[in-house]
Amino acid sequence: MENIGYYNGKTGLIEEMTIPMGDRSVYFGDGVYDATYSVNHIIFALEEHLDRFYNSCRLLEIPAPMEREALKAALYDCVQKVDNPNQFVYWQCTRGSGLREHIFPEGKSNLLIYCLPCEMKDMAQKYKLITMEDTRFLHCNIKTLNLIPSVMASQRAREKGCQETVFHRGDLVTECAHSNVSILKNGVFITHQLDNLVLPGISRKHLLEICKEKGIPVEERDYTLGELWDADEILVSSSGAQCMAACELDGKPVGGKDPATLKVLQDACRAKLLKETTPKA
Amino acid sequence: MENIGYYNGKTGLIEEMTIPMGDRSVYFGDGVYDATYSVNHIIFALEEHLDRFYNSCRLLEIPAPMEREALKAALYDCVQKVDNPNQFVYWQCTRGSGLREHIFPEGKSNLLIYCLPCEMKDMAQKYKLITMEDTRFLHCNIKTLNLIPSVMASQRAREKGCQETVFHRGDLVTECAHSNVSILKNGVFITHQLDNLVLPGISRKHLLEICKEKGIPVEERDYTLGELWDADEILVSSSGAQCMAACELDGKPVGGKDPATLKVLQDACRAKLLKETTPKA
Repeated sequence: MENIGYYNGKTGLIEEMTIPMGDRSVYFGDGVYDATYSVNHIIFALEEHLDRFYNSCRLLEIPAPMEREALKAALYDCVQKVDNPNQFVYWQCTRGSGLREHIFPEGKSNLLIYCLPCEMKDMAQKYKLITMEDTRFLHCNIKTLNLIPSVMASQRAREKGCQETVFHRGDLVTECAHSNVSILKNGVFITHQLDNLVLPGISRKHLLEICKEKGIPVEERDYTLGELWDADEILVSSSGAQCMAACELDGKPVGGKDPATLKVLQDACRAKLLKETTPKA
Repeated sequence: MENIGYYNGKTGLIEEMTIPMGDRSVYFGDGVYDATYSVNHIIFALEEHLDRFYNSCRLLEIPAPMEREALKAALYDCVQKVDNPNQFVYWQCTRGSGLREHIFPEGKSNLLIYCLPCEMKDMAQKYKLITMEDTRFLHCNIKTLNLIPSVMASQRAREKGCQETVFHRGDLVTECAHSNVSILKNGVFITHQLDNLVLPGISRKHLLEICKEKGIPVEERDYTLGELWDADEILVSSSGAQCMAACELDGKPVGGKDPATLKVLQDACRAKLLKETTPKA
């Protein structure tokens, strides 16, 4: 198939699939999701994404739609049905269906899967960024479907010819509209600590693991807009764009001052991806 | 019909209606809504709800799904198709449909309408309330589909046998999970000022108009949890529950100390509703 949409056991082309009007996403955005990439029909970092997914369900008290092994099988079943081996692999779970009432509905949660041919970003590219005040809710550690501020911020970036928006709460940088953001300064990798203001990004986690392997010191802490401007490199990471360096922030040049450490990180990201998505002989 | 669901021109029973998987509500909660009640097949305060709806669209840069007169006609068409004259009348507009991408899609927005038999709340009842820290985003003036914190707060209230949750940011009361909250103290009606922390409630607006007519002084300002506890009456207002007095907050008795002013407000709410929803001879 060209792509696949799945909803509670039914499958079809994404553009032809429908869901019930009473799905809790429709009135409340009442659900959680996770997403990663298939390369060579192998789903990258799936276990870590499933860990995060089940944790998001738990935090919002949404019954998991399936046991872990069954969900893995359902995801792989979808991925394998799509001809193109390289795909964006997305799944979400909503708090069931029912009449529009805020309180939790009776019955089972809904599982949606979405696989679309897509390539991960080439890390040779440089990102242009804008900054924007972070006005999101205080549950950014949960990967929910309440994404309007990220939508608005992404659109603002696009209108300015940029690829991402860096959110800050006052003077403190949190993360991007759909990525984490970290900096290199004097050889140290600095990134926001895990709390309710940022998503626990899987690529962020991989970068921290790589830093440990390579002996790059790490600081997980609040950092300021001033530090962002003054960084040797600004690094934007997401599941589809493991470690992108930025060249521009609000129209002014930034980063580009530690290409050696950047290369270490990006090469290690590429190697990890290659290793985990090469079909076994 | 028993009830009606409408989606971009198609209608059916709510429980049988479907929407495309690519509707922007599904992945992002990327839409706005408004809701009021039909009494005797007459939609109460429709012009004010439409004003707010179009303003919500404008604030999120979502193209209006229809011109105002056409939308009114579509809403009345739905309301009239439902046998029961008393209904919850809900409509939402999402930022169109497309593949899952944060940036705005091409094409038209989607209109959904939902009419379900329902009676407005009897104001003789008293509400029991709980309190909860307000962790929502900073766009609470827009009536969006990003409602997870309201869902969670409503569920917490229900579990404690209560009807609403009062949100506070630190020591300052904002509003409820799906209502505004105001207090009476020494004959003065005190309610949070209109800003990005509260919804510009239509029933709140009506109460302010009634206060003006009846010579009740009004203060639109921040007020504290201490003032809430110490209020002569705590008033919870929404489109379906015009002016409910609370008798309990976090399990302890509150209010009940200014029944005379409460009666003036509630009688005026009832009179307004009756006047505007009595079919013309």
